[in-house]
Amino acid sequence: MLEQLKQDVCKANLNLVAEGLVIQSWGNASGVDRERGLMVIKPSGVSYDGMKPEHMVVVSLADGKVVDSHLKPSSDTPTHLVLYRTFREIGGVVHTHSLYATAWAQAQRKIPSFGTTQADYWHGEVPCTRLLTPDEIKNDYEANTGRVIVETFRKKNPLQHPAVLVARHGPFTWGKDVQDAVHNASVLEFVARLATETLRIAPKTKPIPSVLLDKHFLRKHGPKAYYGQNQAPTL
Amino acid sequence: MLEQLKQDVCKANLNLVAEGLVIQSWGNASGVDRERGLMVIKPSGVSYDGMKPEHMVVVSLADGKVVDSHLKPSSDTPTHLVLYRTFREIGGVVHTHSLYATAWAQAQRKIPSFGTTQADYWHGEVPCTRLLTPDEIKNDYEANTGRVIVETFRKKNPLQHPAVLVARHGPFTWGKDVQDAVHNASVLEFVARLATETLRIAPKTKPIPSVLLDKHFLRKHGPKAYYGQNQAPTL
Amino acid sequence: MLEQLKQDVCKANLNLVAEGLVIQSWGNASGVDRERGLMVIKPSGVSYDGMKPEHMVVVSLADGKVVDSHLKPSSDTPTHLVLYRTFREIGGVVHTHSLYATAWAQAQRKIPSFGTTQADYWHGEVPCTRLLTPDEIKNDYEANTGRVIVETFRKKNPLQHPAVLVARHGPFTWGKDVQDAVHNASVLEFVARLATETLRIAPKTKPIPSVLLDKHFLRKHGPKAYYGQNQAPTL
Amino acid sequence: MLEQLKQDVCKANLNLVAEGLVIQSWGNASGVDRERGLMVIKPSGVSYDGMKPEHMVVVSLADGKVVDSHLKPSSDTPTHLVLYRTFREIGGVVHTHSLYATAWAQAQRKIPSFGTTQADYWHGEVPCTRLLTPDEIKNDYEANTGRVIVETFRKKNPLQHPAVLVARHGPFTWGKDVQDAVHNASVLEFVARLATETLRIAPKTKPIPSVLLDKHFLRKHGPKAYYGQNQAPTL
Repeated sequence: MLEQLKQDVCKANLNLVAEGLVIQSWGNASGVDRERGLMVIKPSGVSYDGMKPEHMVVVSLADGKVVDSHLKPSSDTPTHLVLYRTFREIGGVVHTHSLYATAWAQAQRKIPSFGTTQADYWHGEVPCTRLLTPDEIKNDYEANTGRVIVETFRKKNPLQHPAVLVARHGPFTWGKDVQDAVHNASVLEFVARLATETLRIAPKTKPIPSVLLDKHFLRKHGPKAYYGQNQAPTL
Repeated sequence: MLEQLKQDVCKANLNLVAEGLVIQSWGNASGVDRERGLMVIKPSGVSYDGMKPEHMVVVSLADGKVVDSHLKPSSDTPTHLVLYRTFREIGGVVHTHSLYATAWAQAQRKIPSFGTTQADYWHGEVPCTRLLTPDEIKNDYEANTGRVIVETFRKKNPLQHPAVLVARHGPFTWGKDVQDAVHNASVLEFVARLATETLRIAPKTKPIPSVLLDKHFLRKHGPKAYYGQNQAPTL
Repeated sequence: MLEQLKQDVCKANLNLVAEGLVIQSWGNASGVDRERGLMVIKPSGVSYDGMKPEHMVVVSLADGKVVDSHLKPSSDTPTHLVLYRTFREIGGVVHTHSLYATAWAQAQRKIPSFGTTQADYWHGEVPCTRLLTPDEIKNDYEANTGRVIVETFRKKNPLQHPAVLVARHGPFTWGKDVQDAVHNASVLEFVARLATETLRIAPKTKPIPSVLLDKHFLRKHGPKAYYGQNQAPTL
Repeated sequence: MLEQLKQDVCKANLNLVAEGLVIQSWGNASGVDRERGLMVIKPSGVSYDGMKPEHMVVVSLADGKVVDSHLKPSSDTPTHLVLYRTFREIGGVVHTHSLYATAWAQAQRKIPSFGTTQADYWHGEVPCTRLLTPDEIKNDYEANTGRVIVETFRKKNPLQHPAVLVARHGPFTWGKDVQDAVHNASVLEFVARLATETLRIAPKTKPIPSVLLDKHFLRKHGPKAYYGQNQAPTL
């Protein structure tokens, strides 16, 4: 079942390695089938060498139970499930420990919008969660990681800010499907590095004016967007 | 029409990716045919995979109208047009979001000439524009980006400073043809990184003395240049 | 003799180069056969090009004498021997001059545990030795390097902290076998860089709370570990 | 004539590109034949693509005149000649604009010996020249670059410090032959980066104690050296 989604999710996980966002087995990507209420995710702690679509694990969105697999799903599965249940528009989730995004997460700092590169993708900053409490860490840790992300987005549209830094841990990104979530993970790593290099040159750099932020975000994403082709060009 | 120029422009766009100056679809290169009054530029928001010369878009230099294409030109087309109309000696323009040059642009700092590497290409600093006003951003943004570049070069020879940082955005470079503009984009990224690393070692480093600046720039570019072969060697 | 171990040690040495942890001939990996009391290690100052299993040198764990080789073992052999004799649970040792780990060693700073990436592998900091005394440097230098590592671990479990920074020199890592030691050398280089980038963003970052450290280390390594598959999956 | 040396010098120039020490045409390597009094060097401003041994230029060590070539030699030829005439033990010279070494040169700072990695190659710091005077820049610039290097080594053995940073310009390295000079250029770039990263962690790091410096330099290079094989191993 879900053969196409398994292929997409497997490919997305391998792309994380190919793009340098994941080393060792540190990362996971998932996709969702909203109609069937099922999520497909990478197995836990498994090497990327030889990973194939049939190794992907199918999990019920409703209760988190494994369907159709002898492998355990990623230990971060409960985090993914909370995100899918709450952010109803998203179709894919990615978690990495990519270098620069993780450094910002470890520093517990949101990434300010310092220029148009970030404004093309985020309608403002990349937010950072609060640190979990000792109780939230000891009990139901992975689901609480999802809950603190949701808490951070109470007043934000997740599709206008398709990434979060989990304090002291690392980034989660999402998108309309799993490949889009990988794309956002790649862009996030670039803007995280770019923000670091900007502060190295001018440590007191302020965020860009909102008029420039709106211009760039909305020319790509707003109802009057004029960036890109009107329809996918047939190249 | 313009088959050779389309090939050159397509190749230049692909070279930007190959040299690590562009990720995703963030960048564009164009070339001009001054006799015919036509510019050839990358289509907007199109993936580099499978990009071919026939996808390049031909635009009238006079009025910016698309000639001979079903694809939309790069959203930065109005910026390129302003540059070609004003800087009459240039034959190619490149825009990227390359990491280090963009960091300097986000920091709104010109890149001082700290050594002979930069002096071999720029007769001094790499300038940075002022930030556009809210009105300039809201109306005719891309053309105004070109105009603020021109304003920055009122007292500078564009061929002696073949690059600019657009504040909060990123670099534009140019050259005698599109391949030369790519070459300058690559050199710019290197000197931007080099300047950053220099300041990390000695934060108060001053620009080089003008006598050393002149020596290096003029031995390559002045009327008495003695660097390189007298004519292109037949290797 | 020890053909399999020679193959493993040779491959591990080549992997250090492939993973960018070693340039030139700067590094060495060894493995041990506890039953026979023999260590297999890279020859000294030999190029990685064309290195083969039969070039590996077998050394007696008891007295350090070379067995079965016409090549000299790595000049760091006495350091490896001290580690095997004292840390009885380890099966492989690696020494590199990898960039970021060596920078921390040159700075004579331990690497604090700033996030979950490090906590997944180290139950706390990556320790740094004291500097050897002039006498320890002049006489029996390489063995004294091993002894100062052991001294640093008097109150630490070497398998819960599978790496050390030797002051002014560089990192040594170890593991249950030589491949595991290479894996830890690779992880160490990543967390060393990550710590550097974290401090660049927020210079006063404190180590993570112990409850988060325990959670991550113990979910992978404790008796109640639930990360990864219960048994090696057959992919 | 000098076919073998032309091959070695050509290969060395190409290796500079392969090792990431040279981009564009910024760099040059040369070798010398002391018996015949001839130097072989890269042609000036020529692309590395398609460069072949027959393009190398032969120059007289005595008077700097070109022998046997229709191409002009590197514009840095007078610098190389001064070095060969003064440092009688060297057989190869390399000049690059490699990133980190050039940053130190632009900052006009010598690279202190912060650890054993540098001590394995340099018996102390990597020195930096003074800046040339305006007169020295205007007249006979390239030969004066050589002379200021020689001046910097008045009290140093060039084979114990096989590299120099030319202030505001970049590094020159040398060795017993041209391949050895390339090797030293590669090591220099690594130690320059390593020193930068060390200072980022601990800005007040002091040079290593002389007893540790001597230990590492002399175990590889002194009369009692015990690093490496007694003779070249036949691998």
